[in-house]
Amino acid sequence: MGLELDYIFHPRSIAIAGASESPEKFGHTYFKNVLENFSGKVYPINVRATEILGVPTYKSIRDLPENVDYVVSAIPNRDALDLVDACVSKGVKTLHLYTARFSETGSEEGAQMERDMLLRARAGGMRILGPNCMGLYYPKEGLAWGRDFPNEHGNVGIISQSGGNAGEIISVGASRGLRFSKVISYGNALDLNEADLVEYLADDPETEIIGGYIEGVRDGPRFVRALRYASSRKPVVFLKGGRTQAGTNMVSSHTGALAGAQEVWQAICRQMGVINVFSMEELLDALVALTRMPKATGANLLVGGGTGGKGVMSADECEEEGLHLLPIPGDVREELIEKDPFFGAWVTNPVDGSIMGGSKLTPHEVITLIAKNANYDVVINGISPSVSTNGSTPAAPTRAARMLEHTADLANNRDKPVALVIGDFTPESQRLLEATVDLRRQCVKDGFAVFPTISRAARAIKRLVDYYRWREEID
Amino acid sequence: MGLELDYIFHPRSIAIAGASESPEKFGHTYFKNVLENFSGKVYPINVRATEILGVPTYKSIRDLPENVDYVVSAIPNRDALDLVDACVSKGVKTLHLYTARFSETGSEEGAQMERDMLLRARAGGMRILGPNCMGLYYPKEGLAWGRDFPNEHGNVGIISQSGGNAGEIISVGASRGLRFSKVISYGNALDLNEADLVEYLADDPETEIIGGYIEGVRDGPRFVRALRYASSRKPVVFLKGGRTQAGTNMVSSHTGALAGAQEVWQAICRQMGVINVFSMEELLDALVALTRMPKATGANLLVGGGTGGKGVMSADECEEEGLHLLPIPGDVREELIEKDPFFGAWVTNPVDGSIMGGSKLTPHEVITLIAKNANYDVVINGISPSVSTNGSTPAAPTRAARMLEHTADLANNRDKPVALVIGDFTPESQRLLEATVDLRRQCVKDGFAVFPTISRAARAIKRLVDYYRWREEID
Repeated sequence: MGLELDYIFHPRSIAIAGASESPEKFGHTYFKNVLENFSGKVYPINVRATEILGVPTYKSIRDLPENVDYVVSAIPNRDALDLVDACVSKGVKTLHLYTARFSETGSEEGAQMERDMLLRARAGGMRILGPNCMGLYYPKEGLAWGRDFPNEHGNVGIISQSGGNAGEIISVGASRGLRFSKVISYGNALDLNEADLVEYLADDPETEIIGGYIEGVRDGPRFVRALRYASSRKPVVFLKGGRTQAGTNMVSSHTGALAGAQEVWQAICRQMGVINVFSMEELLDALVALTRMPKATGANLLVGGGTGGKGVMSADECEEEGLHLLPIPGDVREELIEKDPFFGAWVTNPVDGSIMGGSKLTPHEVITLIAKNANYDVVINGISPSVSTNGSTPAAPTRAARMLEHTADLANNRDKPVALVIGDFTPESQRLLEATVDLRRQCVKDGFAVFPTISRAARAIKRLVDYYRWREEID
Repeated sequence: MGLELDYIFHPRSIAIAGASESPEKFGHTYFKNVLENFSGKVYPINVRATEILGVPTYKSIRDLPENVDYVVSAIPNRDALDLVDACVSKGVKTLHLYTARFSETGSEEGAQMERDMLLRARAGGMRILGPNCMGLYYPKEGLAWGRDFPNEHGNVGIISQSGGNAGEIISVGASRGLRFSKVISYGNALDLNEADLVEYLADDPETEIIGGYIEGVRDGPRFVRALRYASSRKPVVFLKGGRTQAGTNMVSSHTGALAGAQEVWQAICRQMGVINVFSMEELLDALVALTRMPKATGANLLVGGGTGGKGVMSADECEEEGLHLLPIPGDVREELIEKDPFFGAWVTNPVDGSIMGGSKLTPHEVITLIAKNANYDVVINGISPSVSTNGSTPAAPTRAARMLEHTADLANNRDKPVALVIGDFTPESQRLLEATVDLRRQCVKDGFAVFPTISRAARAIKRLVDYYRWREEID
């Protein structure tokens, strides 16, 4: 269906129109990235400089010694129409316009320029990505606009109308262990739009999970068909900007799109099995759950690691998110009491490890024992590098290592989905901050789904469960 | 009304029953804290050690050379009943039982021990705080159970059924600039209960804002009266644990309380003007807004600092929280266009500073100009130490300083409430992390209300506005 667009991701040569010597500029970073990581020919175009990063420049696309497949434009908008003509004359297949200030400024002039560009590109058989977008991040081929984007590729495909959000998904996602097949920032969607891109990712064998940020929709009926097709094949998570009147007003000045009614969008998501999220945090949390936890279709939850009042709140938050904190089943209770009559009778779900001082059982033994029970579908385990409140954390590394071992144990011995919660930290204690960051890094590296709060973990798990239930119904 | 309890906070002498040599133990920390900071006489009681931290110990309260006003108990529960008798014999006015494992274990034996203690304490004219709680943090007198609690005092009074939550409110709150008049962790509320403590804080001249975490209520009608009285005098924010069935189950094993129906609680809060929050984050956010922002009764909001897609989402999130992103008024628009026809016509609320490259106006000038308009009641301004996505942040300190200056400008030149948003950070770039932590510290130090996300700022502001509107109605 959508794989006809695959050539966009596999150019043999790339030219950067508006390649820049200034390290702060997009035209520098994109050029530098492809120069270092892309295996094909790369041409910098610049009207003034004679060379950039040691590579001789050309004054115009027209001066290139050969045709090129892919052009990235960072030139001012007044020169864009001429660039379109130049690209067509050089057999360019895809023009990515980072160049902005067209319809999104609200001016009729900008909108007219877009229509002119589209007509000429269509006549020349060239596709346009953008304008007003960051374009392609395709680590497998060395295409990237960010300086800190991972070189490794992964299984998450993203489309994003906003370049800033696309960058945040990549950077913050990377710190949580996400790796990407392709990320496409598509801005004003003048030519290539959300439906083209979702269709493509649905068929893309490199993409196992699709995430997206959209503001408006260019072709509603086709987009709905694309979503249905995609979500029947792989999980699809979408965040829609412009849900409120203020958001809608903002959309038009950002990407010039017309944002549709939120109710319609919600109904479409429900029907198409699309996971509908409401913030960047929720989008990333859902992607983390989908990539880092096994399939789950049951909502019976065991929670460990929350002590005292935290346990009470964890219980409330998980239930309010639609999960069920199953009380400890009778046979498990008997087993616990057999091992320790006093604590075995007292312990509850969430398991409060802090009550267990003096018991023969450790909190970890209790959680592992309960988690074994087949009635529990999923586990959330809160861990921290330190139990101390004074920030000196003398035993922190040992404790962190033990925590990690226990959790690996919990996750591997069973095929049960486990989410780890490693708390947000206060910046008061530098050592505690560093210990927490280290523990989180290690857990992410070891493949765990890590969340900053119990309630965010619970919400992501609920979405995982709902999606796989929906899949079971339609299969 | 409640100030008859003031003597509890002003003992002339303190004994720590179960004072410990082991630095990890509560009986050590509390003793060390009062030894260092409390001006009255302090006695360590320990059956084995002859001295602790250089202070000679006594084997029993009964052996003390004089009567004491306040006793902190960290001894095992089996000895608690005898301790009550000993305290009564020594004229103790308040016994704080850190000692736990009574009714909260679910055992009849534990509940019976509580009843016996209460009978004997009442007969002896002694009040009991707890059992199963951390007791008093009263920095003004040097009473504290945590090692990292600030020595400075402030205007926020807290009651918390959970000691862990009380500690988190103090520690995390401190990093956000909160300082406390009194924090009372009261656990099982055997004698001194939520109504006593709210009444006290309502009359306490050192407390200007009351926050609380409760699980169950000992005396419903009296507590409701106390809330009404308190919130008519000062803002009152409460977080209730045990909202769901699972949470309620958890409550009984934590503090032995009976959690009431959530609907009843919500109705009480609405009627009494109590700010009802649903998580620790919301509780702290509300306290930050109440202590660090001037009174606000209007919901017309200006947002700055969110670029592109972030601006769209900010708009959605603020509207969804019940604030109103007022479009830029006509006269302000004219002023902007006069200064810069192109950008002046394009700019919206939220103000997207990233579109303004090449303009004569800076984003800060735009925000300051719009904020001056009397139609805007409140401002949320997102700031960050860096615009770069690569984490190297060469210009970060300069930029941070400028940001700070601009914001101080915005807040001081007008009497308008300003919330700063300094984003949660990914731990990928150490320099960006440090720059963010530094910027946040500086802003907190300068007295700003700082929040980690736009939506959390918006929710806190909405609560501020609702509270002051309610106050206007009843006044």
